[in-house]
Amino acid sequence: MAESSKPILYSYFRSSCSWRVRIALALKNIDYETVAINLTKDGGQQFSEEFQALNPMKQVPALKIDGITIGQSLAIIEYLEETRPTPRLLPRDPKKRAQVRMVSDLIASGIQPLQNLSVLKQVGQENQLTWAQQAITSGFNALEQILQSTAGRYCVGDEVSMADLCLAPQVANADRFKVDLTPYPTISRINKSLLALEAFHVSHPCRQPDTPPELRA
Amino acid sequence: MAESSKPILYSYFRSSCSWRVRIALALKNIDYETVAINLTKDGGQQFSEEFQALNPMKQVPALKIDGITIGQSLAIIEYLEETRPTPRLLPRDPKKRAQVRMVSDLIASGIQPLQNLSVLKQVGQENQLTWAQQAITSGFNALEQILQSTAGRYCVGDEVSMADLCLAPQVANADRFKVDLTPYPTISRINKSLLALEAFHVSHPCRQPDTPPELRA
Repeated sequence: MAESSKPILYSYFRSSCSWRVRIALALKNIDYETVAINLTKDGGQQFSEEFQALNPMKQVPALKIDGITIGQSLAIIEYLEETRPTPRLLPRDPKKRAQVRMVSDLIASGIQPLQNLSVLKQVGQENQLTWAQQAITSGFNALEQILQSTAGRYCVGDEVSMADLCLAPQVANADRFKVDLTPYPTISRINKSLLALEAFHVSHPCRQPDTPPELRA
Repeated sequence: MAESSKPILYSYFRSSCSWRVRIALALKNIDYETVAINLTKDGGQQFSEEFQALNPMKQVPALKIDGITIGQSLAIIEYLEETRPTPRLLPRDPKKRAQVRMVSDLIASGIQPLQNLSVLKQVGQENQLTWAQQAITSGFNALEQILQSTAGRYCVGDEVSMADLCLAPQVANADRFKVDLTPYPTISRINKSLLALEAFHVSHPCRQPDTPPELRA
């Protein structure tokens, strides 16, 4: 029997890395199925044998597409960009592309990993909030300064790029961890513009198949 | 006065992220100058006003090239790949490129950030070794499993790629933190092949302009 040709996204509604990919899929108008991996239920469904065989990192997102399974959100987005180039999420100019990747990596390597679920578990309940706030403010201090020179309407110039796919989910995490965004006017302004876009709206954590009823909007 | 056209790499001999970029520069035969940023001296030279203006993340590496300054090692490597494509560090086939980026991101987002200097400072001296070992073994467990299906002589097939530029420096960190590599035969084998290559040799932490005499080899 032939496999379904529709991509399958292994996703958790609240995972900021899953949201990055959901935005890319929405922007590029790629039809897909969601398989929800609940990171807290049953001790964490990402630890099931079945899911580990799919993504040994035991993390979401993972995308089954074109006969392969890709883990790591930015690797997935770069693959989508190379195989479904319209609309583009990386500018044409190599220097602008470098700026987009710098901002993306700053968030994906410099902020998010330090405040993700598994690290916060290790840090212990009483220290979690301070730890997460410290990781985010330290990254946002740098990001605000960088965006002041790269941003137009969005993170790099006036077109939505991979950097924006990282920004909005990270700001949502900042909200969850009660980070004061007053010192970050550029970040806040761009985030507001992004949330007004259809692709960011439909992919939002409060509108996913696995969003619990009490968190739906 | 015209600026020097030679790229300037802001680097620290022991930084695994700096080493990734040094390997790329060596492989692509790009002549560059090193400005050493000592991450421990003077309370950390990355915190100087001068360096912060250059890279607000206060991290190495940063590369001044073609009139711009790029932070984040993978963004730098992707820029070098796009502007100096020979020899290639990403395969032609998009699926193989996805594998290379997945492995690179697994290390760059999933392992290294959790065991870098600033996080270990936060964790406190008595917990540092256990914390770093846990981050590395957890990532290597996944990586070993992934490489068993992607690797040839190197991480993805038989050509050196960006993934290998991440692997060797991460294994060096594992050594520093006394991680037992016995459970990782594929990682160990690839690392051995990589260290035998000229570009990995000349860029090694023990052979940099800022390597202290007692650590030189």
